[in-house]
Amino acid sequence: MRPIIAMIDERISLACGSGGRAMHALLEKVIFPRLNNPLFQGEEDAALLPLEGATLAFSTDSYVVSPLFFPGGDIGRLAINGTVNDLAMRGAIPRYLSLGLILEEGFPLADLERILDSMGQAALEAHVQVVTGDTKVVARGQADGLFVNTSGVGLVPPGIAISAANAQVGDSLILNGGLGEHGIAVLSQREGLGFEAEVVSDTAPLNGLVAELLSAGEGIRALRDPTRGGLAASLNEIARSSRVGMIVEEEALLIQPAVAAACELLGLDPLYLANEGKMIACVHPAEAGKILSRMRGHRYGQESRIIGRVTADHPGRVVLNTAIGGSRIVDIPAGELLPRIC
Amino acid sequence: MRPIIAMIDERISLACGSGGRAMHALLEKVIFPRLNNPLFQGEEDAALLPLEGATLAFSTDSYVVSPLFFPGGDIGRLAINGTVNDLAMRGAIPRYLSLGLILEEGFPLADLERILDSMGQAALEAHVQVVTGDTKVVARGQADGLFVNTSGVGLVPPGIAISAANAQVGDSLILNGGLGEHGIAVLSQREGLGFEAEVVSDTAPLNGLVAELLSAGEGIRALRDPTRGGLAASLNEIARSSRVGMIVEEEALLIQPAVAAACELLGLDPLYLANEGKMIACVHPAEAGKILSRMRGHRYGQESRIIGRVTADHPGRVVLNTAIGGSRIVDIPAGELLPRIC
Repeated sequence: MRPIIAMIDERISLACGSGGRAMHALLEKVIFPRLNNPLFQGEEDAALLPLEGATLAFSTDSYVVSPLFFPGGDIGRLAINGTVNDLAMRGAIPRYLSLGLILEEGFPLADLERILDSMGQAALEAHVQVVTGDTKVVARGQADGLFVNTSGVGLVPPGIAISAANAQVGDSLILNGGLGEHGIAVLSQREGLGFEAEVVSDTAPLNGLVAELLSAGEGIRALRDPTRGGLAASLNEIARSSRVGMIVEEEALLIQPAVAAACELLGLDPLYLANEGKMIACVHPAEAGKILSRMRGHRYGQESRIIGRVTADHPGRVVLNTAIGGSRIVDIPAGELLPRIC
Repeated sequence: MRPIIAMIDERISLACGSGGRAMHALLEKVIFPRLNNPLFQGEEDAALLPLEGATLAFSTDSYVVSPLFFPGGDIGRLAINGTVNDLAMRGAIPRYLSLGLILEEGFPLADLERILDSMGQAALEAHVQVVTGDTKVVARGQADGLFVNTSGVGLVPPGIAISAANAQVGDSLILNGGLGEHGIAVLSQREGLGFEAEVVSDTAPLNGLVAELLSAGEGIRALRDPTRGGLAASLNEIARSSRVGMIVEEEALLIQPAVAAACELLGLDPLYLANEGKMIACVHPAEAGKILSRMRGHRYGQESRIIGRVTADHPGRVVLNTAIGGSRIVDIPAGELLPRIC
């Protein structure tokens, strides 16, 4: 495996939160060693834990998205779906969520009400219940409006073993739709770029789609939702954890025209943009057809497609076969990317 | 029950996070109704949830304490102990914690390392494991250094039924030591008041003490750790939830001379100051002696004492019998109190 190159400075940089190389360096060099215990699972979307003979999944995410409201969603819907999805990516059935609010003094009550209403609706759609919470308020200027934490628990049905470390050579890579919609929707809203009318966030709960996938049978090895750092970060994470290579076919990737236009204008690569309703599934190639057709029957899986495969070559690396017949390495993102996208 | 009087303005005030009346109004009028579901347990320190025949306890807390380092602890130790204690207050055995970090760009790496080391030690002492985490970074000026969220899960042993709603008339009220140490330690450090040398935070994991309490036998009805809003808020919350009155004997309360001196100087009431290693236990009066002696044998229970009793009179109200022979109502705190104490 390639080591993560040290990019840690004496002070935290924005890049430390971007899902790319600097964040991985911070996690692996500073945070993980200090929380070291046999059950620590910082590399996974959720930890799996033995509890009274069952397997509990447990996950946490803080949400600092700016602006709080964007086309297709808001911080509330994002916070419910994001944690639901992290649990689902381990094959768990999400059940209960917690809600931690950090409010800045002066935050408009009407905005809080709107966000909480949105959370209530998202929880209903995702079949989870918010069961416990905490509210803190800091003085003006000490936070930026509202930060949200949701943590979640769920149960993993017996016999399910899904992990970023379980991808195997020959596996098919399935993606359930287009790339970059969340990232462009938030960025466009924040900067007033004019794409807000055309591009809406894909934020969605994926636990229903995962249930479809699992009901299609055996052969599901790894799932990951490509949020911060995009498809590039998620595929690299799976490739590193599983010590395998990956080949992605550019022609198989779906990118909406408005997303492509925004990327061209802004010099962004859709492979690195955040998604909030997408997932990559590494599945046994013999099962891929059946799984794909099952996924396409689900509301959030209609555009599912095979985008590539797992290889024995170049372990730990992701290679893109480009539409014009070349190939290039899709590295883990290095720089600052887009801050506060989730 | 007395209704909570509306104190909600069109914008969030600092008082909305202080543990007093404004926070309760925000919770009861704005937040709880929107998260309404049969399992929502916002009034309790942790939610109890059915899971595969077992009872799971689940709790969350965000920590925004300022300064991050204070006599007796830091935000890391506070974040581990606080969530451990919230689980323990339902009779659960805390097991697994999540860690959500929101960092401000420019935050010193050395401070982060020191805080994480402190968390690791606190987790070891409390016999819990941090199993999953999340790290976000926001730009300079968009947060104040570091905010931490810890959520936690644990299991409630069969036969345990501890709730703020279970106090019964005649119960004894036990408190495990002195009041106000955490609040004065943080305030003194923040404002440079000069009490830092004498008063240290009482932050401590209380799950071991709760285990002692439970092993003493039946008759434990309600537990609560008097953090934000202090003893006054916690007793009022139990009195309201259980629809009972309470009488507290001022002479039974332990207040360190330096805490008393700081309170006198600053015009603060130690009944309203935050504690981070204290708990109130409502127990059957016939069991109180046995429980008390068991608690006194524990490291964090040596100063345990009976401070009062539960009455049928004045349901929902807490009355203090003062040292000079009078009595006064100890109301739920109303105003702003001390911000960012936890």
